[in-house]
Amino acid sequence: MIIIGELINGTRKAVKQAIADKNAEFIVDLAVKQAEAGADFIDCNPGTTGEAEVADMEWLVKLVQGATDKPIAFDSPNPLALRRAFEVYEGKQTPMINSVTLEAERIENTLPVIVESGANCVALALGDDGMPCMAGQREATARKLIDLLLEKGLPQERIYLDPVIAPLGTDNSAGLQVVQAIQAIKAEYPQVHITAGMSNISYGLPVRKLLNRVFMTVCMAAGLDSAICDPLNLDLMAEITAAEAILGRDEWCMNYIQAYRAGKLGE
Amino acid sequence: MIIIGELINGTRKAVKQAIADKNAEFIVDLAVKQAEAGADFIDCNPGTTGEAEVADMEWLVKLVQGATDKPIAFDSPNPLALRRAFEVYEGKQTPMINSVTLEAERIENTLPVIVESGANCVALALGDDGMPCMAGQREATARKLIDLLLEKGLPQERIYLDPVIAPLGTDNSAGLQVVQAIQAIKAEYPQVHITAGMSNISYGLPVRKLLNRVFMTVCMAAGLDSAICDPLNLDLMAEITAAEAILGRDEWCMNYIQAYRAGKLGE
Repeated sequence: MIIIGELINGTRKAVKQAIADKNAEFIVDLAVKQAEAGADFIDCNPGTTGEAEVADMEWLVKLVQGATDKPIAFDSPNPLALRRAFEVYEGKQTPMINSVTLEAERIENTLPVIVESGANCVALALGDDGMPCMAGQREATARKLIDLLLEKGLPQERIYLDPVIAPLGTDNSAGLQVVQAIQAIKAEYPQVHITAGMSNISYGLPVRKLLNRVFMTVCMAAGLDSAICDPLNLDLMAEITAAEAILGRDEWCMNYIQAYRAGKLGE
Repeated sequence: MIIIGELINGTRKAVKQAIADKNAEFIVDLAVKQAEAGADFIDCNPGTTGEAEVADMEWLVKLVQGATDKPIAFDSPNPLALRRAFEVYEGKQTPMINSVTLEAERIENTLPVIVESGANCVALALGDDGMPCMAGQREATARKLIDLLLEKGLPQERIYLDPVIAPLGTDNSAGLQVVQAIQAIKAEYPQVHITAGMSNISYGLPVRKLLNRVFMTVCMAAGLDSAICDPLNLDLMAEITAAEAILGRDEWCMNYIQAYRAGKLGE
């Protein structure tokens, strides 16, 4: 599983404060902890707007790349912030843009940066018609977006398709729709990665962590191979490690056994 | 999910002792607790042999049917014990025979009892060639066994196919093989139930409960609709409740929300 560590996000209260105060220690700590816990990308979302966002993105990228050698996911809809991120990025591994959608304004702004940089890219199956709610709509939007990115020269393996998770509480079939979309996209584009922020599935329901981690396993069985999540959530990471073993993606269960020895699986 | 409560099993030390001492209170308590926790069938396995097994099965069945109105799964390879169980069974719901296999002696003994009784029946995909270990072998054995039962007049919905779980620790693909077998059998025989004792998957590996419950979810996503398990294991039952919601098998998540209100999902 390719883990995109989501914690450095300016829409979270403590991170917003740290960005406002230019509290470097707080950000560095979050970056290091996520890298140690198994994040493959460290997401950086300034959560601000306009000129401030450009400067805040630069500040975050410089801090994070000084603290870990993990590649960064530049998380912003603002093309100026994305361009600044690439200008200051010195990491050796290809970074990620999070995210592009099929929404007219978003794609007009973001597509040129993706094409120029050739970076990895989270492609959110969302168009101007809003949340996918009809059967097949999610797949249709995903296909259009993937085809556009391929046409522009991005290879399949740089694309991280996010099928867009809707809450189960408002639609009983929300989980199954995502499973079907993952299977369809994976069958058509075998090298495209599938990622998602899972937690929307449990919105409005109790014991959200239980639903989130069960949904993670169900999506992994369907072909999900990446997640935008909190790598410091031990239960979730243990679930992912166990699911990889069960799904035959962990030779001799070595990773599972190592995680156990490192005390990461609980008792 | 159709839960077959597995705790009244004479191969478990405390139950063996209770059967030897004819400790009725112990057995009744296990039956009531499993029924209250959501068991749909109460399995009764005397764990003894010969004449003793026939008498012990009678004792267990009388006790359990006096304590709950759940149907009983008569768990024995001994046709005399199975016949005695049917003679004394007074429950209103159709009981279950656990189990028949394709092994020559087992099927010769058990098939006549199944055909006469028309009871539900756990059909274990196991032949005289031992544990299925080659791709497709599990499905081939399952098909032969199901076809034989159908030919003898048992309707699909009385058959609970158990695909036979092998340990992941000795074969990395053990989980995936079961998933593929479940999908294949469910596609060919849509009314046949799929059940399993899951815990073999984690044999020899650490933190077995984690692997067992993740495997349960993966199998449910593939079509498993029954399990032979411990209904008093709260984590496992919470996992099943969450998986049913995620998989769209729990309208309006009502069962999930009720389980939460009853304190069954943890915090």
